[in-house]
Amino acid sequence: MKRIESVKNERIKAWKKLHSKKGRDQTGRFLIEGEHLVEEAWKSDWKVETVLTTADDASLFPGECIGVSEAVMKELSETKSPQGIVAVCQKKQWHTPERLKGRFVLLDRVQDPGNVGTIIRTALAADAAGVVLGSGCADLFNAKVIRATQGALFHLPVYMGDLVTWIEALKESGIPVYGTSLQDATPHDQFHSQEQFALLLGNEGEGVQSHLLDAATENLFIRQNRKAESLNVSVAAGILLFALKS
Amino acid sequence: MKRIESVKNERIKAWKKLHSKKGRDQTGRFLIEGEHLVEEAWKSDWKVETVLTTADDASLFPGECIGVSEAVMKELSETKSPQGIVAVCQKKQWHTPERLKGRFVLLDRVQDPGNVGTIIRTALAADAAGVVLGSGCADLFNAKVIRATQGALFHLPVYMGDLVTWIEALKESGIPVYGTSLQDATPHDQFHSQEQFALLLGNEGEGVQSHLLDAATENLFIRQNRKAESLNVSVAAGILLFALKS
Repeated sequence: MKRIESVKNERIKAWKKLHSKKGRDQTGRFLIEGEHLVEEAWKSDWKVETVLTTADDASLFPGECIGVSEAVMKELSETKSPQGIVAVCQKKQWHTPERLKGRFVLLDRVQDPGNVGTIIRTALAADAAGVVLGSGCADLFNAKVIRATQGALFHLPVYMGDLVTWIEALKESGIPVYGTSLQDATPHDQFHSQEQFALLLGNEGEGVQSHLLDAATENLFIRQNRKAESLNVSVAAGILLFALKS
Repeated sequence: MKRIESVKNERIKAWKKLHSKKGRDQTGRFLIEGEHLVEEAWKSDWKVETVLTTADDASLFPGECIGVSEAVMKELSETKSPQGIVAVCQKKQWHTPERLKGRFVLLDRVQDPGNVGTIIRTALAADAAGVVLGSGCADLFNAKVIRATQGALFHLPVYMGDLVTWIEALKESGIPVYGTSLQDATPHDQFHSQEQFALLLGNEGEGVQSHLLDAATENLFIRQNRKAESLNVSVAAGILLFALKS
């Protein structure tokens, strides 16, 4: 196994740039951290280019594997307590399928990386066909998003797209699009379960933009205690996905 | 309005100690931050002792209000971008009611502060009668827990207690206790909606301890895609609370 001991190594410096969206966009690569995520990526059809580890042996990994010092690991890690393994992966771009089918989750400006990641994780669990990130969402390849997905991003298409275009395409395919809104909306428990639908969720503070709600087939809300002002958007996503699908 | 300009002021130094659990436990006080939380506390029956603000005027607040410098605010704040208002509150201890009634959420060693806070927020929205934190949970008065509750902790009893004792008391009151487990459990969608129940959720990595699952009335799980390993615990709490109650 090759080794890199110095944080000044050119490859290490190049990989460190993947901490920023700019670096990821320019190279089409991103980092993942921790044994669990590396394993999930590796089991999937995503391309894992290089594994970097502080362990003595990582011979099980079929691709390039490099032993690194603790100092190098600290440099590449984006967590307080590095887990001793990081991998460089190639981004994958999902193209909108010709024929839309199944359940989708559309996100309008969901900014918190933990929310975006958790919603992707929940969408996979709920057998969704895909998640669509509209503009203004946290970057899919942000370390916190990836961590919150718990690897789900390797098993479910996540599209970046214009939400108006998506809403129109879904409706044309006969898939109802349900916006979420506290106004002019129907309680979600009045909907029957269905095989196909798209759920449109919005920004943590502002919700879904009104022109998107107008484009939706219908808008719904979750009845709740009056003292509660709202639900966390990833919790709402879970409640709605599982209620509408079952 | 009084003013404190120096971070070396004795009261500021004392309040700063509320950042730690030890400091909060010793004094029975805790800090909240941001206009929204201060307002929620103030509207509730919790005791807000002192409000500290960088604003020139805070005359609307009826209690002690102190103007502070940016440097003092930075010292008291636990966020990267201080919001200019912090308040010192008195802890409130909830005593187990004589007669248990309604819906409860029991947490076994849920460690992530964001999860504990989000579950309290969701429990309020789902009209729960209370949340019970067993030992090993994140401290209720931790700043991240409070932030994630979005103020719900001021509107819903949150008990600290022994979960075995709680499970027995709930069962004696005729309230079924549903553990969550991936083994020996029934799919949650096979349960009818009910007015009263308790939901038992566990640690992010390990789930609910087996002696607690054994004590539960019945255990349930959420059917999910096989590629998904699990759901985030606060998402699971939301799905189950809203599915079982409606």
